Amino acid sequence: VKRYLVLAEGHSADAHHGKTMRGFVRYAPHQTVAILDSERAGELHDGIPIVGRVAEALCFNPTTALVGVAPTGGVLPPVWRDLLKACISNGLDVEAGMHTFLADDPELAEAARRHGVELHDLRRPPEGLGVPTGENLQHGATVVHTVGSDCAIGKKTMALELHLAAKRRGLASVFVPTGQTGIAISGWGIAVDAVVADFVAGAAERLVVEGASMGDLLWVEGQGSLVHPYYSAVTLGLYHGALPHLLVLCHKAGETHIEELPEHPIPPLAGLVELYERAALPVRPARVACVALNTMNLDEDAARRAVADAEAETGLVADDPVRFGADRLVDAVLARLPARAAVEAS
Amino acid sequence: VKRYLVLAEGHSADAHHGKTMRGFVRYAPHQTVAILDSERAGELHDGIPIVGRVAEALCFNPTTALVGVAPTGGVLPPVWRDLLKACISNGLDVEAGMHTFLADDPELAEAARRHGVELHDLRRPPEGLGVPTGENLQHGATVVHTVGSDCAIGKKTMALELHLAAKRRGLASVFVPTGQTGIAISGWGIAVDAVVADFVAGAAERLVVEGASMGDLLWVEGQGSLVHPYYSAVTLGLYHGALPHLLVLCHKAGETHIEELPEHPIPPLAGLVELYERAALPVRPARVACVALNTMNLDEDAARRAVADAEAETGLVADDPVRFGADRLVDAVLARLPARAAVEAS
Repeated sequence: VKRYLVLAEGHSADAHHGKTMRGFVRYAPHQTVAILDSERAGELHDGIPIVGRVAEALCFNPTTALVGVAPTGGVLPPVWRDLLKACISNGLDVEAGMHTFLADDPELAEAARRHGVELHDLRRPPEGLGVPTGENLQHGATVVHTVGSDCAIGKKTMALELHLAAKRRGLASVFVPTGQTGIAISGWGIAVDAVVADFVAGAAERLVVEGASMGDLLWVEGQGSLVHPYYSAVTLGLYHGALPHLLVLCHKAGETHIEELPEHPIPPLAGLVELYERAALPVRPARVACVALNTMNLDEDAARRAVADAEAETGLVADDPVRFGADRLVDAVLARLPARAAVEAS
Repeated sequence: VKRYLVLAEGHSADAHHGKTMRGFVRYAPHQTVAILDSERAGELHDGIPIVGRVAEALCFNPTTALVGVAPTGGVLPPVWRDLLKACISNGLDVEAGMHTFLADDPELAEAARRHGVELHDLRRPPEGLGVPTGENLQHGATVVHTVGSDCAIGKKTMALELHLAAKRRGLASVFVPTGQTGIAISGWGIAVDAVVADFVAGAAERLVVEGASMGDLLWVEGQGSLVHPYYSAVTLGLYHGALPHLLVLCHKAGETHIEELPEHPIPPLAGLVELYERAALPVRPARVACVALNTMNLDEDAARRAVADAEAETGLVADDPVRFGADRLVDAVLARLPARAAVEAS
């Protein structure tokens, strides 16, 4: 059984850069025994102790350290090297989702060898990727894909919440991880943003085919946004490789531009619905089934107003599944399932 | 001075898989002294002798062999290994644009070392790529981008023809190469399809910034298509990273589905115009300036009808710049230049 120390130095209170930590703590089946962030040492996060140094975490008997921050572009900040060396020298395996692979770092690899621990790069692409084979049109599962207005707004969280709600109804539901946090949580998947660009769609196809072997209602975690100036390539390749039947449009209520990029506006919700439907491949004209809002920055009254406004603007069911429960969104998805791909209770 | 032997075994007559050969022979400043294709040994291609074996090419004194085929997915067919070994053992440098890098192949690398020749992988990404920095909004050049309905229909050729026509008018025009053939032709560039998916837009930005240091009217070679089920990720990342002011929509006249994928229809031209304009980032709402048609499969009457039909359907100037000259298309682009980015004669 793995027991995790989640490394979130400087970012444990940060919804964007700490999103790996937050998602892992909330959804992973493994226990997080401590979080490391020297800026919050002594506090608790969701009941989990926050420590300031690796040595202080050892009394909780962790087996594995997870790098729980997601710096833009994926490069490991130099200050992290000492943290990782401390984990390794104390016998912890290390899991990380950087674009820079820990196992390819001579110093860290040598330290891991010396201390008999494993370095696991969650973002390392599997062998043998290529372009799609057409299997994404042949499996029997229904594919639902969370897409959105920006990065780090909850596309993974929405997919997980809807998946868990569907599972509670007895449906053969599968969460399909496409990024490092989803992989850390679920123990399988491909980080499609780390794949050679020509093979993003092929990687997405492989994921839905694998997911279809596990169940018949797939929730494919979205990446980036079609209007994100950095990551739209990943977004479209994942969309076209996964070939979803239905989309769940995710948005962080109140945001009007891409985070930290004020010159890049986010279109209105109705425009995003139209854009995502327009961008579908003709062979599989996906439709937006509902709108999943992240209202974490709003008080409850404002959150309810945001939900009502989103419904009025789009004509679709909207809700915040974390705050108000996922059932209305799951109902909206099930009501729009393609007839030829009806989902059976398992 | 480099003298090229272009290796096109089995594909010298094939417009799709032989597109590297055809583009290089037509547009590169270096001389192609022979083409290798055992199926056409003894014939001529554009006046260049076709040979059946490497030994038969040596009398033309080549210095460099170029892999002139583009297999789907970029993997080197096994039969090519013997060809490359023959080139190396006869003292030729080798340039190749596969996803599989020749220099990483132990047998070929050792042979190259032994014979003192260089292996140059045109698709190998440069060091230090990342996400865009915003420089793509700050340079002073006008960016025109060729986009299209499919792969291998002439997006590179159209960009080169329009660039050459603009240069003949004395404009400070630059062709911006984004794929292996463009790089082989021009001696610079990045193969954006071989970059880690998260960094496609960053690579595209780097290319337009470098292009803007060479001139003020940039023709950015397009890749793939927004409706191509394999390569749309590359297409959108390149588009959003290059942030073009204007688009040239390229299409192979008469084609109604993606090549070799009959279940994937190509939308009508007017739909493609609307799709590409819709997919622009809000910060730079690119417009289609004209339609560049590839009419190579039509006779002259049919080609003229196809041009007239495209103009009627889209309301834009259309032409086949290879067959009928590029001037009408260049005029259409220049007439729609953004006022703040007027291009000066150099």
